[in-house]
Amino acid sequence: MALVVHKYGGSSLANANSILNVARRIADISRLGNKIVAVVSAMGSSTDNLINLAYEVSTNPDPREMDVLLSTGELVSCTLLAMALRSLGEDAVSLSGSQAGIKTNKQYGKAMISSIEPKRIVAELEQNRIVIIAGYQGITENMDVTTLGRGASDLTAVAIAARIGSSRCEIYSDVDGIFTADPNLVPNAQIIDEIGFEEMLEMASYGAKMNPRSIELAMAYNMPILVASSFSQSKGTIIHQGDSMNNNVGELRNRVRGIATDNNVAKITISGVVDRPGIAAELFEPLADAGISVDIIVQNAGIHGTTDFTFTVESTDLTRAEQITKELSSRIVGSGVVSSPGLAKVSIVGTGMQDTPGYAAMMFRTLADHKINIDTISTSEIRITCIINSSHLEDAARSLHKAFELDDSEIK
Amino acid sequence: MALVVHKYGGSSLANANSILNVARRIADISRLGNKIVAVVSAMGSSTDNLINLAYEVSTNPDPREMDVLLSTGELVSCTLLAMALRSLGEDAVSLSGSQAGIKTNKQYGKAMISSIEPKRIVAELEQNRIVIIAGYQGITENMDVTTLGRGASDLTAVAIAARIGSSRCEIYSDVDGIFTADPNLVPNAQIIDEIGFEEMLEMASYGAKMNPRSIELAMAYNMPILVASSFSQSKGTIIHQGDSMNNNVGELRNRVRGIATDNNVAKITISGVVDRPGIAAELFEPLADAGISVDIIVQNAGIHGTTDFTFTVESTDLTRAEQITKELSSRIVGSGVVSSPGLAKVSIVGTGMQDTPGYAAMMFRTLADHKINIDTISTSEIRITCIINSSHLEDAARSLHKAFELDDSEIK
Repeated sequence: MALVVHKYGGSSLANANSILNVARRIADISRLGNKIVAVVSAMGSSTDNLINLAYEVSTNPDPREMDVLLSTGELVSCTLLAMALRSLGEDAVSLSGSQAGIKTNKQYGKAMISSIEPKRIVAELEQNRIVIIAGYQGITENMDVTTLGRGASDLTAVAIAARIGSSRCEIYSDVDGIFTADPNLVPNAQIIDEIGFEEMLEMASYGAKMNPRSIELAMAYNMPILVASSFSQSKGTIIHQGDSMNNNVGELRNRVRGIATDNNVAKITISGVVDRPGIAAELFEPLADAGISVDIIVQNAGIHGTTDFTFTVESTDLTRAEQITKELSSRIVGSGVVSSPGLAKVSIVGTGMQDTPGYAAMMFRTLADHKINIDTISTSEIRITCIINSSHLEDAARSLHKAFELDDSEIK
Repeated sequence: MALVVHKYGGSSLANANSILNVARRIADISRLGNKIVAVVSAMGSSTDNLINLAYEVSTNPDPREMDVLLSTGELVSCTLLAMALRSLGEDAVSLSGSQAGIKTNKQYGKAMISSIEPKRIVAELEQNRIVIIAGYQGITENMDVTTLGRGASDLTAVAIAARIGSSRCEIYSDVDGIFTADPNLVPNAQIIDEIGFEEMLEMASYGAKMNPRSIELAMAYNMPILVASSFSQSKGTIIHQGDSMNNNVGELRNRVRGIATDNNVAKITISGVVDRPGIAAELFEPLADAGISVDIIVQNAGIHGTTDFTFTVESTDLTRAEQITKELSSRIVGSGVVSSPGLAKVSIVGTGMQDTPGYAAMMFRTLADHKINIDTISTSEIRITCIINSSHLEDAARSLHKAFELDDSEIK
């Protein structure tokens, strides 16, 4: 008998049939004698519908009200799943984030979990009930509802798995696992059987659709995650502590694990800024205050005591970011701001590239062979990212996928 | 400066425009220096949509899960109204039933309010905030969400008004007030300026669309209720303690106040039951246990120590009620069960008919003049109800409305 935590995404719960399908899968596992906690996202596109409603009554919806509004999406799906399980003869109970004891700080819209008090979860499990928990939400000390940020039901699931001592966390959606590249871009993309936390974190941060904070949390608690589909019996991808394996498997792991892509990138350059201590902070604090995520930052020192900053933002943030940067440029006496929309990121990721030369050169050579110009380069220990024109993204992803031998499904 | 409690029904909050309309009305009153608590129902038909979803995943949805599911409708509307008020520059905050301190027993689907702890409401009002409360819901001692029964947002509003010491409770929907009869049946129906609690209770119980429990509660706390439309500036109907007025206004009040109608009636007769103490309880307890509301009950003692019972139920409950009664009939050795669907109730209501002869005779004469056969008669001190064939309901309502001088709008 095991204690397992599942998480089901909105695509797995899009309508009554999908909900009944998930209920049957959970019932099957429960009947084998397992104790199950299932964390759910909101049904299909219901969160988007609620957001649209909010913007119909207000151009700038209040964050506290928005969080209560959005939290209802998960309440709907968790109660329906509990009802569906009961209709199959299983004893199931739904819990809101509050009832599940998920306490957070007051940062509406992207609250951080401060603690989990799982008394109620444990009590319901002891009554041999299947526990369905509304993901993505928690409650402050003042009993105000908060949400944890888009896609954060994964985070709820991992946090609860860690807190109640589950042996692993299983995350289900409508995709069969983590692919070596986006299958929409790269038809030869393969499912990865297993991947290390750090590699997955780079993959997720640079394009693979998974909540990065949930991976960080799983890494911190060494909680293995299975990523699989609720619509098939495919075995999916295990994300777990990669280091030890890396040593064990040796040469086999000494390679690129996947290609991460992101087609939603814009670049801003502010040039001729007087170089002095603190100038970077002055530049990026206002962007952070405006809630704009800055990704890659490159600074080039000039020859006359001035410096240029280049950074990337999501395309959707470009207009606001440009506006803030132009205001700053006139204040801190920069010589100008230039922005480029329509860019993309392509990254190779793998712990195998640590301390191993040649990966960067091979990446640049492959792109050059396909006449793809590299705009900006950024690297971590286990990732190399190139900013390119978005019209070249598909070609870049396919050629890198082939060059780093990911087309071959034999060695995964 | 006054402290007022408003309640807005689903028709007043059916879409973003309606919500903004309600927000403007509340903002206008707030700007006059009033403190406002507004209780809301779910938007338009959203509760029905949630019920349909539940029955798509389960033929017999769990009551606890159903209550959490349905409670989300009011959370959506209360957050949207708070956002809309903020977009108009007002400081507003939404509270769930739980946050508003509404404690109930565990009777899911029709929970009773056990207490209201208005600490949070009072604190928000002291911060000069407009407080928007999700109606129709509360929370048990175990922190499980309950709902108070269909239409019970009125009850929430009256209970909060009484608890926080509001001078009156204003209930807004898309109708202009309480009419002397259903305007869909009787084109000459007039809006009643003021009506006593007891009269309104009879009107509501016998057809007028208002939650009877909320009127009982208002009567218990002597809390005047204004019923009006959120779409017009019409002055609506005041429901208040009628007795004193009755004495003051004298002859003017000595009349029928309104015609209540209900077109959703079925009748069941169980005959040849051996008459002994306890037989009525044996008969009606199983119906109550099945959640079937029995309305009018008539017992006729027979001549051979047997008795007949006739009772009415809502048409929608007829099949189940008939089944239960037939099982009972064979157990307690009745001689047969007969049921009649397609009936209607028409009632005249008014405190004026207390201790005053002639009202019943005039009612029966009016129906007879229109060749309408009376099936069953039931009376209270301030009401006379006739069960008739539903095809005659419109004719009955119009002729009674005229006969009791309600067509004349001068004296209301």
